[in-house]
Amino acid sequence: MFGARCLLRALRSCSSAPCPRHKPSAKLSVRDALGAQNASGERVKVQGWIRSVRSQKEVLFLHVNDGSSLESLQVVADSSFDSRELAFGSSVEVQGQLVKSLSKRQNVELKAEKIEVVGNCDAKAFPFKYKERHPLEYLRQYPHLRCRTNVQGSILRVRSEATAAIHSFFKPSSKIKVPEENFFNVPVFLTVSGQLHLEVMSGAFTQVFTFGPTFRAENSQSRRHLAEFYMVEAEISFLESLQDLMQVMEGLFKTTTMTVLSNCPEDVELCHKFIAPGQKDRLEHMLKNNFLIISYTEAMEILKQASQNFTFTPEWGADLHTEHEKYLVKHCGDIPVFVINYPLALKPFYMRDNEDSPQHTVAAVDLLVPGVGELFGGSLREERYHFLEQRLARSGLTEAYQWYLDLRRFGSVPHGGFGMGFERYLQCILGIDNIKDVIPFPRFTHSCLL
Amino acid sequence: MFGARCLLRALRSCSSAPCPRHKPSAKLSVRDALGAQNASGERVKVQGWIRSVRSQKEVLFLHVNDGSSLESLQVVADSSFDSRELAFGSSVEVQGQLVKSLSKRQNVELKAEKIEVVGNCDAKAFPFKYKERHPLEYLRQYPHLRCRTNVQGSILRVRSEATAAIHSFFKPSSKIKVPEENFFNVPVFLTVSGQLHLEVMSGAFTQVFTFGPTFRAENSQSRRHLAEFYMVEAEISFLESLQDLMQVMEGLFKTTTMTVLSNCPEDVELCHKFIAPGQKDRLEHMLKNNFLIISYTEAMEILKQASQNFTFTPEWGADLHTEHEKYLVKHCGDIPVFVINYPLALKPFYMRDNEDSPQHTVAAVDLLVPGVGELFGGSLREERYHFLEQRLARSGLTEAYQWYLDLRRFGSVPHGGFGMGFERYLQCILGIDNIKDVIPFPRFTHSCLL
Repeated sequence: MFGARCLLRALRSCSSAPCPRHKPSAKLSVRDALGAQNASGERVKVQGWIRSVRSQKEVLFLHVNDGSSLESLQVVADSSFDSRELAFGSSVEVQGQLVKSLSKRQNVELKAEKIEVVGNCDAKAFPFKYKERHPLEYLRQYPHLRCRTNVQGSILRVRSEATAAIHSFFKPSSKIKVPEENFFNVPVFLTVSGQLHLEVMSGAFTQVFTFGPTFRAENSQSRRHLAEFYMVEAEISFLESLQDLMQVMEGLFKTTTMTVLSNCPEDVELCHKFIAPGQKDRLEHMLKNNFLIISYTEAMEILKQASQNFTFTPEWGADLHTEHEKYLVKHCGDIPVFVINYPLALKPFYMRDNEDSPQHTVAAVDLLVPGVGELFGGSLREERYHFLEQRLARSGLTEAYQWYLDLRRFGSVPHGGFGMGFERYLQCILGIDNIKDVIPFPRFTHSCLL
Repeated sequence: MFGARCLLRALRSCSSAPCPRHKPSAKLSVRDALGAQNASGERVKVQGWIRSVRSQKEVLFLHVNDGSSLESLQVVADSSFDSRELAFGSSVEVQGQLVKSLSKRQNVELKAEKIEVVGNCDAKAFPFKYKERHPLEYLRQYPHLRCRTNVQGSILRVRSEATAAIHSFFKPSSKIKVPEENFFNVPVFLTVSGQLHLEVMSGAFTQVFTFGPTFRAENSQSRRHLAEFYMVEAEISFLESLQDLMQVMEGLFKTTTMTVLSNCPEDVELCHKFIAPGQKDRLEHMLKNNFLIISYTEAMEILKQASQNFTFTPEWGADLHTEHEKYLVKHCGDIPVFVINYPLALKPFYMRDNEDSPQHTVAAVDLLVPGVGELFGGSLREERYHFLEQRLARSGLTEAYQWYLDLRRFGSVPHGGFGMGFERYLQCILGIDNIKDVIPFPRFTHSCLL
């Protein structure tokens, strides 16, 4: 039964009339078939999976999807086709004529001449049921099958578009005229994700970025953490202010999001409509407003004056917790907010000393966004040899980081960079509550399904 | 001394004549400055690292590089600039006028009005010496500094271009008209590199690819192995023959290479000229010929008839070793050669059974290329439930791979895919002998510098 290939019917058009010699049917993706202008009977071949079957007296309607778009292609067959074989979840190859549809629901449909069942689907055992909308938690139990559902298909297409948009942001295609202010004409792809390694590269290339998996052994079960996640990291040489850095961060967020919204509107809409009602407006609000900037010190003042009771009492020198991040974003009118200049004692040795007092800070920046909290983290890096040397000595790290000090001995430049958690970005634009739903194979503490 | 910012000289044009009010100098990359058409005194600012200093009686010549191209920008300054500060390896910011050069060596040069040393370079301690061509083995000792050399700069730019070209091959920009036969209009980026996971995706999307780091705990010190390397992997649904798969593999190799050659010719030339003489011709030979196809059985016949004495005696059923791969490529006229249909016993459970006898094979394919050996590995996958079930049972893996069997229970499709080692690809096109020279931070057995 499985993997059986049963040829249901030969070309019907040949049975009564002489069979015209025509070219073999052009293979089309569902997306291209749906986008066909002025469909007028071209012979095409479409392959995919059956998403629905509807049997009427004389006619059988199938919807076939191949992952190229959210929308499926309607296939119209006469009722002589065996609808038992043509079951939900089966894979099929359909040949026929692409014609204008009479219904308003779609522009084109495929008038089937030949339908081949490529692989059957055991409907009883298949965990997804026809016409049922399964909750994301339910789908999560089937990491190997959930990409066959509408919602996961949409999320994965958005993920793919966002990935491409991020690459384009940093490295516009050479075929497109690049405006002068465009950054990152020479990206460098690294094998290891890590800012210190990007800093090595920024000693020879003035704009570098990397995008790849990052691993953290955090023992967290939160809806915002994974043991393996994707990170976009960028480092810019000859950069002297957090303002310049924040401009790139805001540009990356907004440009990527606009590209995604323009390239896969239906997929985004599906999420906004069924998973996160209201998210469309929230996202537009973020896109059309300038992100805000407050200092860590100001943030602490705001928190101290809050009427809300926090689990962790806000206090200068202490970390910002999730509850604080949420409050700050809300306080700022649900617009993403940059928090800058954190206490030196809170941050790693490589962040640039602001040389202020009595509240000693470094030029660090985090971007907090509605729903997700911290999305970006970045800083100016300490490019001054003696400052860095002293910080390392204080931490007993001088020997291990001799190579890092070298970067400051030989043609050091002021520089800064940031990292953006890619899954959190997807959560933020789509309004997906749990991070495990925006990555194909989530790995987290005590769980490694597949 | 380190990180000092010494302003060497104020705008000289202002000293004798009234200082015209002009716009602040436009910041240009070295690449854009070099590409300026009809340079006629525009005021620009360029930032980068000094690659050479030449002092003449009246004039000082600097070459400034910022990683945006192999070529440096010639800066002409009058001899009143202090050449001791302007040392090899220092970082500088130069403002001045972009003018046509009188020399034939370059089209444009920058007439300096202001030169600021951003970071000094301790020339005595700096491991690279002015005008010296250091061997790759020597550079390998300085993973944190070697990207500042011409050769490593070129290799990294090629790496970056090749990465972008691979992405373009699979997912052409939506701004560019896509020919119908183009594959992979819906790529899916995964967090884990792995063919079995790609197969999950290929149950919902018909063409998927992934590109990222892969980890192997191989205890190998060879010039072709790393513990961490990049891999491009693709999986295609509704694919029924190795021929179709090989077409994509050959297309990926040739399209990517043509793009790289066209986008960074100088960088490729540097490698071909100084590191691998003769490689230019060898690569052209590969590009203009169709790759060859032989079966594993034919390959064994060729090896058995060879006059050469192999360390490992060639024999049907045994693996191909490096010495065999080398011989086969040479035998085929130094054209890449696909070896197909390997013994079933040699290959993993998921490769499609050819159901032949007495020599039982699977539909596997490796691509062997000159200089490197195995570059691609791929296969048709066993999409038939009962075949796969039996193979798993024989290996005692049925329980662990129930999820993988599920993919064949629910709308299975014939499919196949391949993986290409990205570093080996770079070795192959550039003629770089050691894999550690084509990756920014090589990690291999017992070595994890940085």
